[in-house]
Amino acid sequence: MNTTTDTTQKHQATLDAAVEALHGRTFFAAFPENPSPEIYGADADKEGRASFKAHRDQRFTELQQGEPAGWAGQEESPYEQASLGIEYPYYNPETLVANAQEVFGQWRKLKTADRAALLTETLEGMKERFFEIAYATMHTTGQAYMMSFQASGPHAADRALEAIAAGYEEQTRFPEETRWEKPMGKYSITLHKTWRAVPKGVALVIGCSTFPTWNTVPGMYASLVTGNPVIIKPHPKAVLPIAIVVAEVQKVLVAHGLDPRICQLAVDANDHLIAKELAENPAVKLIDYTGGSAFGEYIEGLKGKTVFTEKTGVNSIILDSCDDLDKVAQNLAFSVSLYSGQMCTAPQNFFIPESGVKVAGELVPYEDVVQKLAAAVTSLAQNPKAGPHVLGAIQSAATQERVRDLALEGSRSVLAHGTIENPVFQNARTCSTSIQEVDASRVEQFSQELFGPIMLVIKTRDTQESIRLAADLAREHGAISCGAYTTDSAVKEQIMDEMSLAGTPVSFNLTGGIYVNQNAGFSDFHVTGGNPAGNASFTNPEFVIKRFTWVGFREPIA
Amino acid sequence: MNTTTDTTQKHQATLDAAVEALHGRTFFAAFPENPSPEIYGADADKEGRASFKAHRDQRFTELQQGEPAGWAGQEESPYEQASLGIEYPYYNPETLVANAQEVFGQWRKLKTADRAALLTETLEGMKERFFEIAYATMHTTGQAYMMSFQASGPHAADRALEAIAAGYEEQTRFPEETRWEKPMGKYSITLHKTWRAVPKGVALVIGCSTFPTWNTVPGMYASLVTGNPVIIKPHPKAVLPIAIVVAEVQKVLVAHGLDPRICQLAVDANDHLIAKELAENPAVKLIDYTGGSAFGEYIEGLKGKTVFTEKTGVNSIILDSCDDLDKVAQNLAFSVSLYSGQMCTAPQNFFIPESGVKVAGELVPYEDVVQKLAAAVTSLAQNPKAGPHVLGAIQSAATQERVRDLALEGSRSVLAHGTIENPVFQNARTCSTSIQEVDASRVEQFSQELFGPIMLVIKTRDTQESIRLAADLAREHGAISCGAYTTDSAVKEQIMDEMSLAGTPVSFNLTGGIYVNQNAGFSDFHVTGGNPAGNASFTNPEFVIKRFTWVGFREPIA
Repeated sequence: MNTTTDTTQKHQATLDAAVEALHGRTFFAAFPENPSPEIYGADADKEGRASFKAHRDQRFTELQQGEPAGWAGQEESPYEQASLGIEYPYYNPETLVANAQEVFGQWRKLKTADRAALLTETLEGMKERFFEIAYATMHTTGQAYMMSFQASGPHAADRALEAIAAGYEEQTRFPEETRWEKPMGKYSITLHKTWRAVPKGVALVIGCSTFPTWNTVPGMYASLVTGNPVIIKPHPKAVLPIAIVVAEVQKVLVAHGLDPRICQLAVDANDHLIAKELAENPAVKLIDYTGGSAFGEYIEGLKGKTVFTEKTGVNSIILDSCDDLDKVAQNLAFSVSLYSGQMCTAPQNFFIPESGVKVAGELVPYEDVVQKLAAAVTSLAQNPKAGPHVLGAIQSAATQERVRDLALEGSRSVLAHGTIENPVFQNARTCSTSIQEVDASRVEQFSQELFGPIMLVIKTRDTQESIRLAADLAREHGAISCGAYTTDSAVKEQIMDEMSLAGTPVSFNLTGGIYVNQNAGFSDFHVTGGNPAGNASFTNPEFVIKRFTWVGFREPIA
Repeated sequence: MNTTTDTTQKHQATLDAAVEALHGRTFFAAFPENPSPEIYGADADKEGRASFKAHRDQRFTELQQGEPAGWAGQEESPYEQASLGIEYPYYNPETLVANAQEVFGQWRKLKTADRAALLTETLEGMKERFFEIAYATMHTTGQAYMMSFQASGPHAADRALEAIAAGYEEQTRFPEETRWEKPMGKYSITLHKTWRAVPKGVALVIGCSTFPTWNTVPGMYASLVTGNPVIIKPHPKAVLPIAIVVAEVQKVLVAHGLDPRICQLAVDANDHLIAKELAENPAVKLIDYTGGSAFGEYIEGLKGKTVFTEKTGVNSIILDSCDDLDKVAQNLAFSVSLYSGQMCTAPQNFFIPESGVKVAGELVPYEDVVQKLAAAVTSLAQNPKAGPHVLGAIQSAATQERVRDLALEGSRSVLAHGTIENPVFQNARTCSTSIQEVDASRVEQFSQELFGPIMLVIKTRDTQESIRLAADLAREHGAISCGAYTTDSAVKEQIMDEMSLAGTPVSFNLTGGIYVNQNAGFSDFHVTGGNPAGNASFTNPEFVIKRFTWVGFREPIA
């Protein structure tokens, strides 16, 4: 059996570096995002693919959380439009919660440094399986291979480490004990004081179908590092990527003599969903949720819970002025096309002034700008070497139908959706981006998230109206990202000021290989709570400190 | 006009020391609690009393927040049971909120360091008026002179400084800007990133009748330092102490060319209360509330607000074993008598095992322990040199009536309440502590706060039952403090563990000049949110970071 002390020593340098990175907010990555054989080994990809294949049509037996009440599984590959045939152990919600309560004492009584180190150790196990997780992600979410690897593997592991580091720092930011001596003139009163960071209780993490690890691990590791046992309830269509992570966590727990039920997987039954039953259990005190707004608002409305959500948002692009419109169009085409718009950070509403966009001092007319954007979107989709690898596949049939059936009254179709031929998977569910022009006065048409490859162009009176609409939408309906193009410093400051009040981060003048959708661990705060899109906040201090309570004790020293 | 830069330089050392104290959690006080002439000047007390008297039967004209809609005032001295005759300018709630919205931009655009320094400067003005505030506190709350001075003056100012320091630290904990460079093999992507701590909006602070400054300034200064304009709505019976503080804040704002309406006083009209109207205004985003649980729960239930509450709690004393029962009884008698039990930290429920309390190895029978406690309470109340100065007066007639009318079915009266002769104020509203013995099975009789000088003795089967009851009550009904007496280290650890899960700080084995009711700024966390008593949390990081949102901006560096 591994000793906790050894593990704690082993990871202290990593934790210290991660805490430092949190405050530097410069580039930091503990897990390389490049899936190259030089980094991960010559056979890593092949072995990962084989491991994924070996799961198919089998029961997933790696979990160590006790005898199941049954087996369940509903995953389908968007690339094959066929079942994966994998079954997971099913447990009744009350069993899972009772298990978590039973092991709470063991987990919360570990020292913070030990918990943080054990959790860091689990990321090493996860790293060994990045390629297996990548294929599992491809064939549940429809992400292309590169995104599947990066988002579900190294980027997710970095986000997990970020949560561990933040939780470790917050819990060690005040002394465990101190001598308090108050001078009272001729004598003094002396107290021995101690403090404990007391975890809130059983935690639940509800995952989504599109980013099964990236959106799940921050809350999962944040709750764990602060001493709360966790129940992971993935989306029924995207279980395998996170099941592998949970299995790795359980392995490390068992190897250190701890109960694996400190971190449990909770799959839905084939005939009914269990998220509500878990969420409403009075013993569940913490809930992390990623998904649609309706269920998110139900979760937020539950009494006696501390809740972190990432719901839907309506992300805007404000086009005012730029130096090179072609580069801008290429960058934006990539952003709307990446994973076929199925990212919470994907832009949807493109605000363009009716007078056009100033490009290197010259006004390019509105319609020319629209056509340039459409051409760039088309060019990317039709490029057989790029299109399939950027757009990937459509996770759910509902998303594909949404694009097909989109009918916005009075709108103009700038570009009709199409399909993308995938060179490997003939039966892949694909859909290229549809572009609609919507009237600026019909706010109801662009004030909700149209999840999937849908881009709306909105002609505004001027940039002032663009800013006002983008800020109003963010404030009232939520936004997770915003992109703006302007060469005017006063306009830039105005956008920063107004979008900051709407709680929305802004990327300015992105061209080349960096996109508004991308969000870097240890540097970019994600969904910090300033608008209705949620307060998931990976990882600012609030994201971890709300998971525990400071309690103090004091006693006179004789 | 003072320049902000000069003021910022002037207070930097104080702020740095305060931040350091937050993390050391050893004794720290920027404002001496001893009202001695050596510290505050030979005439400070006399002048303060004269200043207080000069307010009586006058309009309070120090505020600079514009033409009022009328004048209102309802304060009465508990020492005289007579009106103070002071009138304050009354403003319509919508006017106050509109004013706050108007000045939001000015206040939020100041640099954090400047805001923190300006607010620290206001505490210097407050310090000049500590004695005036003390008399104002006496004659609104009924506190005795010493508590009035300490709690409303130096202790409150220290709590304010603590909030300023915590807010300053949290907002400067991440860089304002950084260069982010991601290596991409042959080239790298470089972004200039900036972050802003964006205040949430208009803040409201609702005060209570018993601690008009101590319970108000933490939320007030926490909201202000994070850039939110604040509206202070005091209890209509305890306005003057905080009105003086608001006037001092406005003076400093004006002296630095800022709009005084950044911090406004909002008194109730004589014929209607305005707290709900203010709280429900959609522009009000932050609410701090101290007071009864019913209104607190209404405030907590408002949508779209970030809320900090300090509501009622049921505080317990667990008696297991000790070295010197006389010293314990004296300490506890002081704790229940201090300000006649009108403190949120006052103990109410005294759990004593039926087998008695082990004292220096010998069992002292239950009834002897009860009688010793009663004797200590009586002795303190009847001591003319101590009684009036410890018990003070009863703030409201309702509290006095609660003690008089207390009828707990089946309970035994151990000590009947009486009156305390005040040597200066013949007409003071006083009441000595009533002691009732309640059966341990009748939890409903001791599971709510009986505000005022009421002490309940509960005979338990053993210390295990005492701990269970104290922890259950805290978890279900809230608790702000707990006192425990035990010489057994296993029992001590058990109490720490179980009360920590109930989110309640515990003072062990207090005797001599330190009491369970007392809560030291910069060291003791207060109401950290682990149970239904509230989450006011002065001052842990959560108390300030929920008042602003991090928003990031990024742009490629060519």
